[in-house]
Amino acid sequence: MSKVTADISMSLDGFIAGPNVRPGNPVGDRGELLHDWYQAGGEIRDEIFDASGTIVMGRRMFDVGVEPWGDDPPFRMPVFVLTHRAREPLIKAGGTTYTFVTEGIAGALAQARVGAGDKDVAVFGGADVIRQFMTAGLLNELRLHLTHMILGDGTRLFDGMTPAQVELESTRTVESQGATHLTFRVVKKTWQKWPEGR
Amino acid sequence: MSKVTADISMSLDGFIAGPNVRPGNPVGDRGELLHDWYQAGGEIRDEIFDASGTIVMGRRMFDVGVEPWGDDPPFRMPVFVLTHRAREPLIKAGGTTYTFVTEGIAGALAQARVGAGDKDVAVFGGADVIRQFMTAGLLNELRLHLTHMILGDGTRLFDGMTPAQVELESTRTVESQGATHLTFRVVKKTWQKWPEGR
Repeated sequence: MSKVTADISMSLDGFIAGPNVRPGNPVGDRGELLHDWYQAGGEIRDEIFDASGTIVMGRRMFDVGVEPWGDDPPFRMPVFVLTHRAREPLIKAGGTTYTFVTEGIAGALAQARVGAGDKDVAVFGGADVIRQFMTAGLLNELRLHLTHMILGDGTRLFDGMTPAQVELESTRTVESQGATHLTFRVVKKTWQKWPEGR
Repeated sequence: MSKVTADISMSLDGFIAGPNVRPGNPVGDRGELLHDWYQAGGEIRDEIFDASGTIVMGRRMFDVGVEPWGDDPPFRMPVFVLTHRAREPLIKAGGTTYTFVTEGIAGALAQARVGAGDKDVAVFGGADVIRQFMTAGLLNELRLHLTHMILGDGTRLFDGMTPAQVELESTRTVESQGATHLTFRVVKKTWQKWPEGR
């Protein structure tokens, strides 16, 4: 059965982007170091893309990414962008379409599931979107690409989360040059709700 | 040749102790969860103790730990405690002695090396002491026992560190129930000094 997965690269000190993320600096200062493992870990990257049928991302990630991803984005599948403002879909070359969803994570997931068919729905970020999926119990698998570096500053993946919100069960660990790839099954904890206003 | 090693359990969000560390709450609120892997990972724990000849720790760690460790502490080897105030050694049963060193990390290391002979010097914490050893280029190996949980609050291992200070090269990864044990060789970076006052 198809899963809802999240893939994210994280430094040893818990950052998934450097400081000063903005258009022109999409992964923040020094954030590109988090993705160095792509070079040697191409097999792992291919595996992610092969298993996924659609992608969900937040609007901020889209805003800083859309320019560098260009006219032939690397996704080559439908991308659903969470936003508060309705907007016409953007169709790019190579199979990538950006569809803007105003019905929140559940609405985006419903559309992404239909688009994915038998394949997985991949939540690509940012951190806040992954946290929302995790704490709502909508994420089946978290794949942390733990890069062997200290970033020192930036956006933290687990910022504001508490031990009561999720339980993670390791199902696989793979090493590549410069990173350890940790796969977790996300076990929903229903006895504490995500704090209001987050 | 004998090495200087550091062993520390860390949550996925980077904490090595929960909040409110004090005598009577030595690893902070919920911090005991960080050490759950001891149960299933006894082999890894034994390996650490077998390889080590002496231990170095900070005074705060000593202050909160000395009571729970009791009259027959689990170390069974000489322990060197970094402190600003000279104090007579404390001799406990089973081979554990606490010696108080007022000459900083280099002074403690010199004494611990003599005591360790052919074995390793193990830096046991707290976070600030491990950071001092790392950034001074005195640590050869960092062994992170990454527990598969989110702690949410507490003491962060890499707090205040920057990418320029150390480079970590993975040399070994082992899984146990509930934790991934990551061993890194610490490569000193000499081109940026530890900021004054830390």
